Amino acid sequence: MDKQGHPTAGLLLIGDELLSGRTQDKNFPVIARFLGERGIDLCEVRVVSDVEDDIVAAVNALRQRYSYVLTTGGIGPTHDDITADAIAKAFGVKIIEHPDAVKSLHSLFAEIGVEPNEARMRMARVPQGAELLINEKIRAPGFRIDNVFVMAGVPHIMVLMLEVVGQMVEGGVVMLSKTVCINRGEGDLAVPLADIQARHCDVSIGSYPFKEGDVFGANIVLRSRDEAKLSAAFSEVEKLL
Amino acid sequence: MDKQGHPTAGLLLIGDELLSGRTQDKNFPVIARFLGERGIDLCEVRVVSDVEDDIVAAVNALRQRYSYVLTTGGIGPTHDDITADAIAKAFGVKIIEHPDAVKSLHSLFAEIGVEPNEARMRMARVPQGAELLINEKIRAPGFRIDNVFVMAGVPHIMVLMLEVVGQMVEGGVVMLSKTVCINRGEGDLAVPLADIQARHCDVSIGSYPFKEGDVFGANIVLRSRDEAKLSAAFSEVEKLL
Repeated sequence: MDKQGHPTAGLLLIGDELLSGRTQDKNFPVIARFLGERGIDLCEVRVVSDVEDDIVAAVNALRQRYSYVLTTGGIGPTHDDITADAIAKAFGVKIIEHPDAVKSLHSLFAEIGVEPNEARMRMARVPQGAELLINEKIRAPGFRIDNVFVMAGVPHIMVLMLEVVGQMVEGGVVMLSKTVCINRGEGDLAVPLADIQARHCDVSIGSYPFKEGDVFGANIVLRSRDEAKLSAAFSEVEKLL
Repeated sequence: MDKQGHPTAGLLLIGDELLSGRTQDKNFPVIARFLGERGIDLCEVRVVSDVEDDIVAAVNALRQRYSYVLTTGGIGPTHDDITADAIAKAFGVKIIEHPDAVKSLHSLFAEIGVEPNEARMRMARVPQGAELLINEKIRAPGFRIDNVFVMAGVPHIMVLMLEVVGQMVEGGVVMLSKTVCINRGEGDLAVPLADIQARHCDVSIGSYPFKEGDVFGANIVLRSRDEAKLSAAFSEVEKLL
């Protein structure tokens, strides 16, 4: 929770392939919007590689700081999928085979006609005390332990798990926003904007510059959980047009 | 430096607009490739909002841990551009107007016919002891202090500053990589891959699953700084095709 009692979140993206620049993450903006729609402030994102100590340190830092932590990546069947073990270590608990995950995987493997070998059954392993992120569309589940939600990295599977997360988290008052696009350089806008910001402290005003051809401009984004206060600040910013 | 003496880096992306999901970051993959080409391992990325304490904490954590830290965002003229102040605070130094930045900004403002007002001149402020990231194409500079490189968030300006950073960092031995795309599920590949990984400890082997239509497959990415060792592991992975 933040100082005003609104729920907060940290996001941890796990995977060497993201840090090498070879794979571009697609989950961050999806999760950011998911949280935003629920009034949960995404306060911090970290990207770490598939190194146990790094995952443990990041999870422990984030889970103590924010209402919720969401992670993506590293829960498949291969040797480099070490997220479940790292989360167990972060919580100081054993890793176990979850009976419902075993059942779900067995039925999946029977259906597609493959052996439930040891590697495949690794996907049933969760930290002791974890609850599965599972439904009829998810066969190899993610899991939740305390305030940490552990999801797959593959975007179309992550999205399915995010639906389940949506049923488990408690949302807050949704942050409202309004944007004014002004075709003037930020240097012109800075003084009046700072003045408006100073008089509207419950509204956060951000200025995001752009250049289209020879035109300098800025998107002025106003954010507040209070509609009246947002509108009041917005009408002042509109006068800068 | 890592345990083998290779240079390392952390990246800090600063900006509320990234965390809200409204703006998708484009700098991370560009910087990841820039570092990779120079043999510098990008080990961690963090995204934080425009909150001074959060920026200070992240910069101090990253600069103590990695050879280099690169930051993007928050160095424009508006009230929400607080990166320079936060970096000064992180280093415990004063913030000053850099004479060369003042000169560059004055010539820019004269050219485009605007007043060098206080807001615009904010862009000349750097932590004491900082060196500018500037050249003939950059008029509102970024800066370097110690091992921290502070760049603009707007992608086309960030790229210009990255060129200057390239002249300031010391690269290492470039990480080589080879990829094998295998149209088999990871569950089939996991046991032989783990076996190959165990016998080739100087090669990092990652498995990145995909699904195209009904076909399950995985890109097996091998990475090493030693070409002979990389080839030896690669030829074993190829046999899984």
